[in-house]
Amino acid sequence: MDIKYIDADLLQWNGNKTYLPISERTNYLSLGEGNTPIVELRNIGNLVGGQIHSKMEFMNPTGSFKDRGSAIMISALKDMNVSEIVEDSSGNAGASISAYSARAGIKAHIFAPSTAPKPKLDQIAVYGAQTHLIEGARDDSTKAAILYATSNSIPYASHNLSPFFIEGTKLFAHEIYRDMNGNLPDHIVIPVGNGSLFLGAWKGFSELKKQGHINQIPKLHCIQAQSVMPIVSAASGKKWGSDDVKPTIAGGIAVGSPPRLKQVTRVLKSSTGTSMSVSENEIKKWQLLLANKEGLYIEPTSAAAFAGTEKLIDTKIIQKSDSVLIPITGFGLKDNPPEL
Amino acid sequence: MDIKYIDADLLQWNGNKTYLPISERTNYLSLGEGNTPIVELRNIGNLVGGQIHSKMEFMNPTGSFKDRGSAIMISALKDMNVSEIVEDSSGNAGASISAYSARAGIKAHIFAPSTAPKPKLDQIAVYGAQTHLIEGARDDSTKAAILYATSNSIPYASHNLSPFFIEGTKLFAHEIYRDMNGNLPDHIVIPVGNGSLFLGAWKGFSELKKQGHINQIPKLHCIQAQSVMPIVSAASGKKWGSDDVKPTIAGGIAVGSPPRLKQVTRVLKSSTGTSMSVSENEIKKWQLLLANKEGLYIEPTSAAAFAGTEKLIDTKIIQKSDSVLIPITGFGLKDNPPEL
Repeated sequence: MDIKYIDADLLQWNGNKTYLPISERTNYLSLGEGNTPIVELRNIGNLVGGQIHSKMEFMNPTGSFKDRGSAIMISALKDMNVSEIVEDSSGNAGASISAYSARAGIKAHIFAPSTAPKPKLDQIAVYGAQTHLIEGARDDSTKAAILYATSNSIPYASHNLSPFFIEGTKLFAHEIYRDMNGNLPDHIVIPVGNGSLFLGAWKGFSELKKQGHINQIPKLHCIQAQSVMPIVSAASGKKWGSDDVKPTIAGGIAVGSPPRLKQVTRVLKSSTGTSMSVSENEIKKWQLLLANKEGLYIEPTSAAAFAGTEKLIDTKIIQKSDSVLIPITGFGLKDNPPEL
Repeated sequence: MDIKYIDADLLQWNGNKTYLPISERTNYLSLGEGNTPIVELRNIGNLVGGQIHSKMEFMNPTGSFKDRGSAIMISALKDMNVSEIVEDSSGNAGASISAYSARAGIKAHIFAPSTAPKPKLDQIAVYGAQTHLIEGARDDSTKAAILYATSNSIPYASHNLSPFFIEGTKLFAHEIYRDMNGNLPDHIVIPVGNGSLFLGAWKGFSELKKQGHINQIPKLHCIQAQSVMPIVSAASGKKWGSDDVKPTIAGGIAVGSPPRLKQVTRVLKSSTGTSMSVSENEIKKWQLLLANKEGLYIEPTSAAAFAGTEKLIDTKIIQKSDSVLIPITGFGLKDNPPEL
């Protein structure tokens, strides 16, 4: 089928020098996602000895960066007259896709691990999606979703596979360029599970480079939990299989077999970024530090990126004089509250 | 003491034609609050037969509009070298003030009703504030806070009394003017407890009118729960006392004795707005309608404003051809999840 594109500026992404795969402005189901603020975190910067900015991706309509991808993906599906979809998610993408599906009048089936945090599962249910709770690891939800989609002939609208999703997350990069007046950070440190933000960032910066707006793409670093680190392992040539998955509080990056693993490692290499894993205790420590020092209640997945940044500075992969941007990918309210 | 003012534009409130009471840009503790999107809700508009826009005030750093007031109030307190404060709140203001206090390095004591929703109380604790849970009605928390502040000689930084708080919430009005290209809505329907958004909106529009940018201020309507309606009663000349308080799920507007009651009723009159009360069932109905029809998970307090709008349209106080703006004041995630 023919996919039409529309200038991002017409969709109120003012000054974003890119196109989005939606046929008409009136088909765009925006809830006001994106255009998140970038804030300097001086207290955290003083702690790690660096210049740290965060982009507040949790300040999106459902509380996570996933809304960028869902807005474009669900608008495109609506364009194609799709009326029912299947998706699997650890929580954030499920909530996001449920919300935009509700607005689109699309019936959504969300397959999620039965161990997903209650606030995320409640949120999915409130939007009116049908939740299918699946026992076992994160990957078992994917398998169950695909089986259900196939047996019932319903489109499998996986945010991890759909190219439309990354057409939404790429705006993360365009906004950094626009809002930092072209003065890009040296490093961007991203928590990576399936890589929808990581790959979106790469796509956005690549567009800007191709158009001649920037000469160099920031180093894109990838942070994972030690409990689930297929990408860190692949990047360093170590053996790792989904049997090695251990429990982690960073549910958003607990993906044992990311379908775009090769793409992520290729981008890591191209952007000369580093992958790094962090422990559960480091994640917990950074979640509380962000709350107590900066007034930011972030989910453990986002805290992993701060823990990783500390390590990247300690190992001198990031110099203290460099500028660093860390997305805060999800709101702490969406997860189980931390132990105090 | 002398209070210095700074041009709002210098604090990244681009195009806001106003001044803010902060001495220097570097003392501004912004977490990226405000500049919330305005989105048309066509599905809801079709339901009630009107043209409805919402301003997404829940997309603020702690999940409610209170961050506008806290950012200015806590920055001003920091300017004055205050290091410890006392505040009382049903939850949203408490979480917001805790967050900005953490960023400012100010120790915060938050007095809250023991019946406040767990997610809000958890959030306050995560930011590191000291929570004091008080039995009884909302007003008992106020009394306990004042007693504690007085006995311990700590400033009582009540968001309901501080003029700095409204200096923050007034930007709500300036942004509506800026983002709707001066094409103001005919009506703004606001859930009112203490009135910090209602009075802020009035102050902002009054500034714009004084400066000659607008000729007329939109009608500002005030919605309360039937269970707690001191303002609706006062506006219609009916007797009502804090003994008449009944339980409500709309915790953000469950204020039996609002200290600025007279100011609110004066603004209601000046803006030729109407006050209206809504039932618990109407609030519940609208919370789910917003989730199922628009993909917006809003707290019951915000749902009350939609229920009120329906009644204002039904009673022809709002004509179907009029334009209406409703702030979504708080994120549904912050409250107990609704029964499905």
